[in-house]
Amino acid sequence: MAQFREQFDVQLDDHCASRIETARRMHPRYEMMWQTIRQHLSAGGKRIRPYILAETYKAYATEPDITAIMPAALAQELIHQAMLVHDDIIDRDMIRYGNLNITGQYDKSYASDLSDDTERTHMAESASILAGDVLLSEAYRLLSQVDSEPERIAQATLVLSEGVFEVVAGELLDTENSFLSGIELSAETIARYKTVSYSFASPLMIGAILAGAPEDQITLLKKYAYYVGVGFQLRDDLLGVFGDDAKTGKSSSGDIVEGKRTYLIEQFESHADEALKTEFSRLFHRSDVTPEDIDRCRALLIESGAKTRVEEKIDQLHSEADAIITQLDITDQGKGIFDDLTRRCLTREA
Amino acid sequence: MAQFREQFDVQLDDHCASRIETARRMHPRYEMMWQTIRQHLSAGGKRIRPYILAETYKAYATEPDITAIMPAALAQELIHQAMLVHDDIIDRDMIRYGNLNITGQYDKSYASDLSDDTERTHMAESASILAGDVLLSEAYRLLSQVDSEPERIAQATLVLSEGVFEVVAGELLDTENSFLSGIELSAETIARYKTVSYSFASPLMIGAILAGAPEDQITLLKKYAYYVGVGFQLRDDLLGVFGDDAKTGKSSSGDIVEGKRTYLIEQFESHADEALKTEFSRLFHRSDVTPEDIDRCRALLIESGAKTRVEEKIDQLHSEADAIITQLDITDQGKGIFDDLTRRCLTREA
Repeated sequence: MAQFREQFDVQLDDHCASRIETARRMHPRYEMMWQTIRQHLSAGGKRIRPYILAETYKAYATEPDITAIMPAALAQELIHQAMLVHDDIIDRDMIRYGNLNITGQYDKSYASDLSDDTERTHMAESASILAGDVLLSEAYRLLSQVDSEPERIAQATLVLSEGVFEVVAGELLDTENSFLSGIELSAETIARYKTVSYSFASPLMIGAILAGAPEDQITLLKKYAYYVGVGFQLRDDLLGVFGDDAKTGKSSSGDIVEGKRTYLIEQFESHADEALKTEFSRLFHRSDVTPEDIDRCRALLIESGAKTRVEEKIDQLHSEADAIITQLDITDQGKGIFDDLTRRCLTREA
Repeated sequence: MAQFREQFDVQLDDHCASRIETARRMHPRYEMMWQTIRQHLSAGGKRIRPYILAETYKAYATEPDITAIMPAALAQELIHQAMLVHDDIIDRDMIRYGNLNITGQYDKSYASDLSDDTERTHMAESASILAGDVLLSEAYRLLSQVDSEPERIAQATLVLSEGVFEVVAGELLDTENSFLSGIELSAETIARYKTVSYSFASPLMIGAILAGAPEDQITLLKKYAYYVGVGFQLRDDLLGVFGDDAKTGKSSSGDIVEGKRTYLIEQFESHADEALKTEFSRLFHRSDVTPEDIDRCRALLIESGAKTRVEEKIDQLHSEADAIITQLDITDQGKGIFDDLTRRCLTREA
């Protein structure tokens, strides 16, 4: 995976360099936007989506030619980054991967011309909206230029757009869930739309489609995406409360303070007794809690059995994913890649 | 054009209905977003871009089949609407076509759950960001499904994405121009990127590409797009100051109050004498002006010759556009359509 990432990052940076050159010929300010985009793209990211796409393609292609499908892998990453850029605006974040994100960069660069904070942030967010738009558009451009059979490209484009259609639903539901009353929404539904679709189903299916894999295999991969994607999200929920801050790079008290309604919390609320629930509700979703309060929340989630239930659910999803892998019509080496992927996603600590 | 618009609007609404149905099966809140999108799309818009695409296609196709290329016309309109949705966020507008736009609709619908104005507007704008994203993505999906030769679709996708690449530059430059100091930027540059590219070049070229028109014709259409697109923008600048509010549907004092640096203003500043400039600078870009002050601004723009210069420039662009039309390898009827289009864009009063 490290090797792929290195190869991929070179291509991604080459692509940025070529767009910077075009933008430079248009106007220095547009060149600056593309420089900012390049900086953002190189700041971090596991490149898991392009990796999945490339590995699935290799597993199914008779004569794999990674160079030919690289634009599709780039497209997958650009869609992801476009959504992150817009997600950061929604979440009012100016930091991503430990650095200033696009809004943060613009907020800094506009400082000498706009002294009013609200106005400056609005203009910085406006630049980020536009940056996200052009990334989304670039993704489709890249996919349309893949060197493959036209029907495969058309089918891959459909899959990519279904991913965007679903992730927009997931983002909307996740956002509205934080403030709308009376909204009926399970953590599993959010995970399905926010994570399964464009992070797993889309790269798995596009990789297989570009390799010319048969329809039944694509259907299996879509099922596999569900298990590994929901499992990935549940693992994320656990790490958000019980993770090692040094490994995850984010605070494990965040979700409790924010009152994030994850599957873990749903399990607690469905199964904990009234005494535990009363105590929990006094500590959860409060900005004035002490580290001891957070520890007590963790203890309550363990004591109630909620943590174990999530772990069992992840194990169950792991088994379902494994069962699908055995049905895939690929070499043992290919199956090994998928086994490894499941393990990485469902038992990860970062 | 009225006939095309009617036919087009049926298709657009059918497309929305089908997405609403898919969204409904996902979650009522996502269905609501698509209902809001449908409402927004049916609220207004001249459909000039899809019209240009369809007419250019008809002019060049041996056996035109409008139904086959309708998804491309829809794509062109959805890209435009996506950009408008995001542009309204940047401009902090909640009204479009005399109705609440998507942000406005969400702001209203979130009122019972979010009493804080800033928070509610932020959440409404967040929904609009997502709505614009999914519209942009849908545009590419539709284009990929056009019933045409694959190379034509790939080429059309490139052209569409170049249009987005340029319109993002135009939006960014237009926005930054309003507050950044020392930015070197002519009104013509903004017009080129904001208007020529995705509003004219893209529909003209995509229509011709899907009809299988030869390369030299596509090059001519790109030139034609420049003349008619810049002319369209200059006409817009004139209407923004001298237009009839009842016809244009917007106030003709807006541009003066906002201090919009149009080609008209550039002509004034390059050619007016110092006395006129001093008087103008006391009235331009001020929120406390009287209707008499606005009238005086108009008089100064006339007296200085700026208005005449813009009109002459439009006439010149009109002649250049006409000269291109004579070189097009299409029937006289087809040429008549383009003549009519030039006239509509360059002499319009609304």
